[in-house]
Amino acid sequence: MSRPKPRNAVYAQSGGVTAVINASACGVIETAMKHRAHIGKVYAGRDGIVGILTEDLIDVGAEDRATIRALRHTPSGAFGSARFKLKGLDQNRAEYERLIEVFRAHDIGYFFYNGGNDSMDTAHKVAQIGTQLGYPIACIGVPKTVDNDLPHTDCCPGFGSVAKYIAVSTLEGAMDVASMARTSTRVFVLEVMGRHAGWIAAAGGLAGHKAGDAPHIILFPEIAFEREQFLARVQQCVTDYGYCVIVVSEGAHYADGKFLAEAGTKDAFGHTQLGGVGPVVANMVREAHGYKFHWAVADYLQRAARHIASKVDVDQAYAVGKAAVEYAVQGKHGVMPAIKRLSSKPYRWKIVPVPLESVANVEKTVPRHFITADGFGITPACRRYLEPLIGGEDYPPYRNGLPSYARLRGKAVRRKLKGEYTLK
Amino acid sequence: MSRPKPRNAVYAQSGGVTAVINASACGVIETAMKHRAHIGKVYAGRDGIVGILTEDLIDVGAEDRATIRALRHTPSGAFGSARFKLKGLDQNRAEYERLIEVFRAHDIGYFFYNGGNDSMDTAHKVAQIGTQLGYPIACIGVPKTVDNDLPHTDCCPGFGSVAKYIAVSTLEGAMDVASMARTSTRVFVLEVMGRHAGWIAAAGGLAGHKAGDAPHIILFPEIAFEREQFLARVQQCVTDYGYCVIVVSEGAHYADGKFLAEAGTKDAFGHTQLGGVGPVVANMVREAHGYKFHWAVADYLQRAARHIASKVDVDQAYAVGKAAVEYAVQGKHGVMPAIKRLSSKPYRWKIVPVPLESVANVEKTVPRHFITADGFGITPACRRYLEPLIGGEDYPPYRNGLPSYARLRGKAVRRKLKGEYTLK
Repeated sequence: MSRPKPRNAVYAQSGGVTAVINASACGVIETAMKHRAHIGKVYAGRDGIVGILTEDLIDVGAEDRATIRALRHTPSGAFGSARFKLKGLDQNRAEYERLIEVFRAHDIGYFFYNGGNDSMDTAHKVAQIGTQLGYPIACIGVPKTVDNDLPHTDCCPGFGSVAKYIAVSTLEGAMDVASMARTSTRVFVLEVMGRHAGWIAAAGGLAGHKAGDAPHIILFPEIAFEREQFLARVQQCVTDYGYCVIVVSEGAHYADGKFLAEAGTKDAFGHTQLGGVGPVVANMVREAHGYKFHWAVADYLQRAARHIASKVDVDQAYAVGKAAVEYAVQGKHGVMPAIKRLSSKPYRWKIVPVPLESVANVEKTVPRHFITADGFGITPACRRYLEPLIGGEDYPPYRNGLPSYARLRGKAVRRKLKGEYTLK
Repeated sequence: MSRPKPRNAVYAQSGGVTAVINASACGVIETAMKHRAHIGKVYAGRDGIVGILTEDLIDVGAEDRATIRALRHTPSGAFGSARFKLKGLDQNRAEYERLIEVFRAHDIGYFFYNGGNDSMDTAHKVAQIGTQLGYPIACIGVPKTVDNDLPHTDCCPGFGSVAKYIAVSTLEGAMDVASMARTSTRVFVLEVMGRHAGWIAAAGGLAGHKAGDAPHIILFPEIAFEREQFLARVQQCVTDYGYCVIVVSEGAHYADGKFLAEAGTKDAFGHTQLGGVGPVVANMVREAHGYKFHWAVADYLQRAARHIASKVDVDQAYAVGKAAVEYAVQGKHGVMPAIKRLSSKPYRWKIVPVPLESVANVEKTVPRHFITADGFGITPACRRYLEPLIGGEDYPPYRNGLPSYARLRGKAVRRKLKGEYTLK
């Protein structure tokens, strides 16, 4: 009985990177290398889908095993990621056909696309086009997003680590303010990521355990901002506790949908680029109450903070990468490995496949019952959900005081196609 | 032979708190408790000098030993700190006399004042007044400041940890940007503390090891900002490396002394309160070049980040607290335990006493030979100085995903003086 010749695999990172997306890459690569009967060479798109479109592939086989292993503790996108959303099939079918052309040239039978909502949609469409063009390809989505907004999965790899960073930072920053509030800063504002979903802001709530603990106010994108109510609460906190710590999501907005702060620019996906709601909120408090304030904007630091990654998150990131390959060699396609929670205390979970089409372009926001009635805090149900996700530490190795992170060789795969491809 | 009766000790925290000021407190307290022949009770000012002036003292002896031990890994000021500078002797001699009155009421023979420049000045004056009023008191300064600007000491406890946090954050943030620069953010700006001294900004430079590594530009308060030169360098970096990472000190200013960003408010010491230079620099770049940008302002997170403290820093913070008590029981007074570097590789240091009057109100900034000729980077000499200070990790214990930090009981010492004291 002859077995079919192994086909090659390509892995690509997409969208905003995280502290653990490379752990998923590590899971994909190490597992692929164990399935030589099915998978031949392992390539990666340099700068994600852009590298595939331009036939700029990285030969993963040329990297040391130790470097691949070190991806597990390395933040950012080691192969390069891209904010590049493929247009709809009817708008730019040529882009999808180009992908298939490149796949065909390199005998790619497996496409592992590591990203969020948009990427699951792309992976789904690539699978469809492949079928239509008579080029079967197993497209597996590998979930990743700090926003934690993918449906049908308990959480998204990348979220647990940013949640831990924000919970720890809220705790530490609040202790700082509390210790000096009598003669110095009264109000501290921490701006966190989360455009439409307030999961990261909610994670700040883990810092507090009893009444009076910081954070005293969380501003969610799920709750319309009401200025007077907010300012009254700030004043009450300063009166009652001597200080007030506020965690505000970049997506906080008024009832009419207007963001508290808009930078006025848009990213490649046409989303408004936010930033600066922290100082806006802090100044609002100063104008109303005159309190001395400070504000911090964690920005990229929060999603890159591998130094304080959640062990649960790292384990899950690796597991979805591993499962993606196992699904592919089992003949599954058009699926995403999702995390299914079996119990919260202790936290137990397993990986299950879900169809890409059920994931694509659906956004999971923080449900109302996870937010306190006044809209400013998290409920015990939310805590039960969140707490396991920041569980455990997974420190990287250090050298001369700094984390020792992997750097890839990034050897290019020889091109097979003629001519230059110009990105649309 | 009869020994003199032990006298009591008071410890107070002053100014901006750090990730390791409580490690100094731990050193002071644990050591004081070993010298029962000299030191009776150990008290602490609640909210620093404010607590001493108002006779609001904390009975340290009422805390569990385990809680005192846990101070070593707890950030912020566990006893409360204060931004409260005593006026000059000629302006408000009554404040100093009040301190002596409180000391006398509680038989305080030892005053350990844990702070920066201003606090060393205060401790020095208290010692003088005590002598003039016929109330001898051993005043020992315990150095602390994230700014690293005290003279006659290799470094200041608190600095090593913020330096490590900023170096790690610069490395991680830069990796994030590098991995996505092709289609997304080109310029990333990280704003750090340091009003007059650029030591923290310099620490960001530790993230890079070879040409092209981030950070590509450091803006020091020691170097007058020149817009055109800066913008040209940003453009060159984006052209050469695809992206540009900038670490900017809050104290960055133009040649005429004007800060790049001024919040317009002043703190209790009359210093202009800064904040927001990060977005100012980022917008400057966008207006000139149109690059997509992101910016982060670490603010309090950097000085509270005990989760990524430098082990060297923690050890030194404890050591200066311990030495302060040892000096006091040896009969030394009017001194500060300073750190003397014996060698850089390996880093070896010892504690030596320096007179408070030589420390008070002298500010040590980054010397010109630690900054590259173009003013945008650190030299090898600067790296040799800084690198040992971020050496080693000293992780706190964790519980349910969060650091387990000490919380004091804070039992008040019974008041002995009549009437209320009103702060000036």
